[in-house]
Amino acid sequence: MNAEIIAVGSELLLGQITNSNARFLSNHLAELGINVYYHTVVGDNSERLKNSIEIAENRADLIIFTGGLGPTKDDLTKETIARHLGTTLAMDEEALESIVAFFERAGRFMTENNKKQALVLKDSEVLINNHGMAPGMLYKTDSHFYMLLPGPPKEMEPMFQFEGKPKLAKILNKEDVILSHVLRFYGIGEAELEDRLQDILDNQTNPTIAPLASDGEVTLRITAKTNTEKEAWELINGAKSQILDNVGQYLYGYDDDSLASKAVELLKEQTKTISAAESLTAGLFQSELASVSGASAVLAGGVITYNEDMKIKHLGLAPELLKEYGVVSEQAALAMAEAVRQKFNTDISVSLTGAAGPDAHGDQPAGTVWIGIATEEGTTAYRLQLSGMRNTNRLRAVKLALSYVIRTLIDGNARKI
Amino acid sequence: MNAEIIAVGSELLLGQITNSNARFLSNHLAELGINVYYHTVVGDNSERLKNSIEIAENRADLIIFTGGLGPTKDDLTKETIARHLGTTLAMDEEALESIVAFFERAGRFMTENNKKQALVLKDSEVLINNHGMAPGMLYKTDSHFYMLLPGPPKEMEPMFQFEGKPKLAKILNKEDVILSHVLRFYGIGEAELEDRLQDILDNQTNPTIAPLASDGEVTLRITAKTNTEKEAWELINGAKSQILDNVGQYLYGYDDDSLASKAVELLKEQTKTISAAESLTAGLFQSELASVSGASAVLAGGVITYNEDMKIKHLGLAPELLKEYGVVSEQAALAMAEAVRQKFNTDISVSLTGAAGPDAHGDQPAGTVWIGIATEEGTTAYRLQLSGMRNTNRLRAVKLALSYVIRTLIDGNARKI
Repeated sequence: MNAEIIAVGSELLLGQITNSNARFLSNHLAELGINVYYHTVVGDNSERLKNSIEIAENRADLIIFTGGLGPTKDDLTKETIARHLGTTLAMDEEALESIVAFFERAGRFMTENNKKQALVLKDSEVLINNHGMAPGMLYKTDSHFYMLLPGPPKEMEPMFQFEGKPKLAKILNKEDVILSHVLRFYGIGEAELEDRLQDILDNQTNPTIAPLASDGEVTLRITAKTNTEKEAWELINGAKSQILDNVGQYLYGYDDDSLASKAVELLKEQTKTISAAESLTAGLFQSELASVSGASAVLAGGVITYNEDMKIKHLGLAPELLKEYGVVSEQAALAMAEAVRQKFNTDISVSLTGAAGPDAHGDQPAGTVWIGIATEEGTTAYRLQLSGMRNTNRLRAVKLALSYVIRTLIDGNARKI
Repeated sequence: MNAEIIAVGSELLLGQITNSNARFLSNHLAELGINVYYHTVVGDNSERLKNSIEIAENRADLIIFTGGLGPTKDDLTKETIARHLGTTLAMDEEALESIVAFFERAGRFMTENNKKQALVLKDSEVLINNHGMAPGMLYKTDSHFYMLLPGPPKEMEPMFQFEGKPKLAKILNKEDVILSHVLRFYGIGEAELEDRLQDILDNQTNPTIAPLASDGEVTLRITAKTNTEKEAWELINGAKSQILDNVGQYLYGYDDDSLASKAVELLKEQTKTISAAESLTAGLFQSELASVSGASAVLAGGVITYNEDMKIKHLGLAPELLKEYGVVSEQAALAMAEAVRQKFNTDISVSLTGAAGPDAHGDQPAGTVWIGIATEEGTTAYRLQLSGMRNTNRLRAVKLALSYVIRTLIDGNARKI
């Protein structure tokens, strides 16, 4: 089965947003063994959309649309498809009820155009939207499948994963098994990783091995295609052990793991608690931990001391220390980590202080960061010199702090990497 | 002039990377007044690429290609275009020299296939690559312009900005001025906004008015196309005052403003300071404020009390209060906001407590959020019932808290919206 993804929305063509939906869907379609040969983006224009549908019908069996299902006049995806296929739209009572309920819950007045969202292609299978109002659809003709999904990723992603993808898997009734396994690394660049795995990467056919880098992490996706799940795992595990022989010390997790989820998992396993004193990152470190469901079992909390006085008042740092070394210093990072560990009575604590940029902080250039880690065995501080923009630096500092926490929990103490 | 952007690369169709190039280019083309009607993504496959070129020639004057200019066998963009246009490739000596120099500098051995990168379409204008090896090209026929750019954004973006875009501007020899102005709203849904602006939106031609919603915010982009900058601003300001007559009370900013930058700006203007006590959001609110350069002038800091004991220990909340009402309650939100305002000695303070999900918190369903705002005039708390996934709820709570801060600073007190 070949697929084409058509994203509908003038905001994409104006460069206001990126077509991240196409990436998400392509990734999942690859897992189903569906070949994606084209992505198309077209504006909120009925004639040009019709033109795109006709082209796609000539080169794909499955056409997935994202966007244009909303309440406004610009939203014309289902209307255009209905006209093109010679069918009509019908009110889906269940979707209408959930829209009415949404407005009641929110205590907001429902305008007439919101009802339009509950219209679906006649005789289509409705895909329920648990995170927004517009339902999705799967419509079949003798020659093609048409899947209509909403544009906002937070609505589209769960709808595809839990409604659309299972329906496609059933249609395929597939005999091929395609399995992917993702290895997650930190503390190593993409180029160095590839260099150290050159021979393995050069000789890959099945499974395939695809590296990808983003925000200080590198991943390798191993994908095997064969007849049984058992054989697929044998292929994957063969490649995996070759890879880990070379770069195993940089591995931190698999698949949907994130640095934050891995840290929370290790803390839970070891029944340890964590706290943080944040300056530079102003809460982003703790917020990353809290983004993991169940973090409340391990995250006690912490203090954000964004200005110098608060470091003295709420963490008890000595004014002389700050005067002598400054707030962006090893000494400040060590003292902050120790103070918050004591105040919040946790097993491990983290401190983050630095100059995010664009300006230097006294004699410390933009991008200078100190991260402290305190445990009952002692306290260590790490110096980073980052080169990104303000918010890239803040995010990278958080990721590196998480990786130090993971290393500390695995090794029993922190280690410079 | 109408343009189509064709991104070439199987990694895009496999969902390994996002087509951020299309967004970048679209944005810049819009500034030049060039209409982009389609984006296409096609894999490293000569036949399908040829098919895409033919379709694009039927609907665009300018076709911009990204990707497929590298040294490997997969890279076949220029070869395919040369064959399609009945021309050949010629060695560009300048590009070859710079490739040789690159390998010498890096102390690496240059393989033969790297030379291939210096081949360009015969009679094309070469676009210099200052951040990589493959040069870009601009090729003209009687009917079309073809621009070939490398795939990696760090090579493509500067090449387009400093080489490609000026050449296009010269071709256009344009007299048109195109200006955009973005109005930013909160506390109103996209559908309601459009409903209230129905007449204005229905009658728009020049300037055009485009709504866009994301994460609790709605924006309107007003774009005018005319002969002089002065006239363009007159058109924009005419539409703007009509819009603000209808929905001005929901406006919070313009263009690159964000809720966080607006809050920081207002605090600075009023020389006020802010602190926060965060449970639900675990630092995300303060981190959003700190993402704005210069936030340290107004953000004192705050406390993250992720578990109940910490609310008692570090904010001094009465155990009886928590026992009677629970941590997800109006009473807890009021007490947290008041306590942190006192502890951090700030003019205004914010508290966030709630059940992010997926689980309920006691008898409070997932998505229940209380936000407290304390000032010297008193303390108010707002209840939200959000319906998203865990991290969507956390982010929306932060955005709404920022909007309450803005409203409080503008009105002198918080107001339910």
